[in-house]
Amino acid sequence: MAVGNADFPDMPPLQGVRLGTTMAGIKKAGRRDLVVIELPDNAKVAAVFTRNAFCAAPVTVAREHLAACQATSKAPRYLLINTGNANAGTGETGLCDARASCAELARLAGVASESVLPFSTGVIGEPLPMERLLAGLPAALDACDSAGAAWQLAGEGILTTDTRPKGASQTVAIGEHQVTINGITKGSGMIKPNMATMLGFVVTDAAIEQPLLEQLLKEAVDRSFNCITVDSDTSTNDACLLVATGTGAAVVTEEQVAVFRNALQRVMTELAQAIIRDAEGATKFVTLQVTNAASREEALEVAFTVAHSPLVKTALYASDANWGRILAAVGRAEVSNFDVSRVVINLGNVHLVENGGRAEGYTEAAGSEVMARDEITIHIGLGRGEEAATVWTSDLSHDYVSINADYRS
Amino acid sequence: MAVGNADFPDMPPLQGVRLGTTMAGIKKAGRRDLVVIELPDNAKVAAVFTRNAFCAAPVTVAREHLAACQATSKAPRYLLINTGNANAGTGETGLCDARASCAELARLAGVASESVLPFSTGVIGEPLPMERLLAGLPAALDACDSAGAAWQLAGEGILTTDTRPKGASQTVAIGEHQVTINGITKGSGMIKPNMATMLGFVVTDAAIEQPLLEQLLKEAVDRSFNCITVDSDTSTNDACLLVATGTGAAVVTEEQVAVFRNALQRVMTELAQAIIRDAEGATKFVTLQVTNAASREEALEVAFTVAHSPLVKTALYASDANWGRILAAVGRAEVSNFDVSRVVINLGNVHLVENGGRAEGYTEAAGSEVMARDEITIHIGLGRGEEAATVWTSDLSHDYVSINADYRS
Repeated sequence: MAVGNADFPDMPPLQGVRLGTTMAGIKKAGRRDLVVIELPDNAKVAAVFTRNAFCAAPVTVAREHLAACQATSKAPRYLLINTGNANAGTGETGLCDARASCAELARLAGVASESVLPFSTGVIGEPLPMERLLAGLPAALDACDSAGAAWQLAGEGILTTDTRPKGASQTVAIGEHQVTINGITKGSGMIKPNMATMLGFVVTDAAIEQPLLEQLLKEAVDRSFNCITVDSDTSTNDACLLVATGTGAAVVTEEQVAVFRNALQRVMTELAQAIIRDAEGATKFVTLQVTNAASREEALEVAFTVAHSPLVKTALYASDANWGRILAAVGRAEVSNFDVSRVVINLGNVHLVENGGRAEGYTEAAGSEVMARDEITIHIGLGRGEEAATVWTSDLSHDYVSINADYRS
Repeated sequence: MAVGNADFPDMPPLQGVRLGTTMAGIKKAGRRDLVVIELPDNAKVAAVFTRNAFCAAPVTVAREHLAACQATSKAPRYLLINTGNANAGTGETGLCDARASCAELARLAGVASESVLPFSTGVIGEPLPMERLLAGLPAALDACDSAGAAWQLAGEGILTTDTRPKGASQTVAIGEHQVTINGITKGSGMIKPNMATMLGFVVTDAAIEQPLLEQLLKEAVDRSFNCITVDSDTSTNDACLLVATGTGAAVVTEEQVAVFRNALQRVMTELAQAIIRDAEGATKFVTLQVTNAASREEALEVAFTVAHSPLVKTALYASDANWGRILAAVGRAEVSNFDVSRVVINLGNVHLVENGGRAEGYTEAAGSEVMARDEITIHIGLGRGEEAATVWTSDLSHDYVSINADYRS
């Protein structure tokens, strides 16, 4: 299931960026499962990774290779991504396999091993099927193409339980020059960021220096992938990259960063929301807006407490305007000196809770009308300050249980 | 659904304690839903309540009445409990209704209003059906009986989505005297303590002074009701009482408290576990033992992170030895400087994880054999210190979703 329709957008080609995919038989026969993304020389790469203490072997190796590139002022040249196997919980063997995969692609492409960054997603704890992966590399490399359509094939080649590929693109003017930002992402379960539980690859043709690039990525992730949750589970493999190829004419600097920052935020938010719309078993796309908080941390605490409540999520699935469950979830959030009589809750445009109880004039009919929609906004005003946060989540359906009880993911 | 069989135990009568129930039509026709528990004069009462900021009206009033009794050195004489309606999120009206219920029972029984402590459980946000509740009070009072069988009827009269009444009893010798502890509890969803999301009423015939009674209750709750979770949701109405009637011959003092403390812990643990065995949709009873932690808080953090993981809970439902999900949940627990290479995980007697990955010699067949059982112990050794914690939880099944999507609870 998934909420709404979402056609993969047209992606403009980015000079020097080529994407290739193949069906290596890692996930299952007839599924694209191996992706190579070639970057032009001198591209800058910023990355954020999972904070899960059990991080996967490719996360460790991608970090090492990025550090090695930066130490020698070289640029990463290839991203190597497989689905069907996370290469997580695989100990020393997993690290060897991730390194050997990079080495083989580097050999085929004639670059240094450290120029290849590995990413994996899929089942945890099984050894990477190295024979099939290595055998698939020449075909993936040969398939590399700069055409816009190659982005969609790459989007398909990184999916796990997702039902559709997810992409976003923005082209904006910076001064006299056009800048394009293309992104693809995957993820539909084990989604509670920090970093966001997903893979995301975002590339722009602008030139951006490393420190600014890293700052832009961190800011954008904090308000996109780090603000979504399906099931509160943080994966071992999350990674999000922002690549600036510098192959376009535009240069983004700290002095004139606003236009780029906004466009990047739009791309990242669209990608993050696409994950929620395609969340495992999702029948609802839910926006939680918490306002008038004393701090952004407090706003996020309330939003995530509501977003993680199985009782709120099952009520959303049932289209049941069970506002008592929302109120109970708000009440158990870890907020110090919480005066709940000041809390105001709205469901869409319907006033739900005030003065510690049901709002005057609220009717079940009005609440049910909003809950019947497939896109729902819950607004929670805390009456404590001026800070705010927005979090996106999905409902908890029978299909979520089926997908995760039946599928070894 | 529920795990295993659980007959309600034989309860010895406690001198001076009488329990009465009736079908007042608050929950639905033909269901016991109103319970009165009469205590002898001079009983000592200790209580712990929900920490949810949106606490229900009866919680506020019970706290007020307890404080009033203690200020005037009087003892509470009646516990008044209804199911079918939580009287939560009901604002000023809810407080008036809770007070009026106590006043009417006090009038009928000829005691002061403050001597009645109210408790409610059921749907949040609907006004208490006062006409039916008040009309039911004389019948509940008339039905008061000291026989052991009255405990089972009271156990039935406090249930919501529970499928069976839950009771526990211990009789132990303290010096030359026998001491009995009887307890009943309810709760099967919205169960994540702090205080435990449930109602619990535990009564002993020993004489125990107020400060010691409160300490004993707090200690026992922290290792029983505060160590269970069904769905991470903390209710607005939780309450647990420990009553010492002093009508038996035994006196419990700080100097010779060990026997009583152990018996109380057994009763409370049995009651807390009974909630998990009867959790909404439960097909598994799961014990999470975390050992070798640097602190008890850290052990609890790891245990609850695993216990709340929807991916672990659906794997348990599917009897799938998906140890990668357990490892990923352990890895996202908030533990500082977490060296996961020291983590050891066992599933029953099967060695699952060591050195950051799957344990050598582990076989899928061995893991599956344990997962197929309906009572499962997961042991997680952190390799950081000497502290430990045990948490009990259930799985996440299709029935959990059905119960909470179809039932306005």
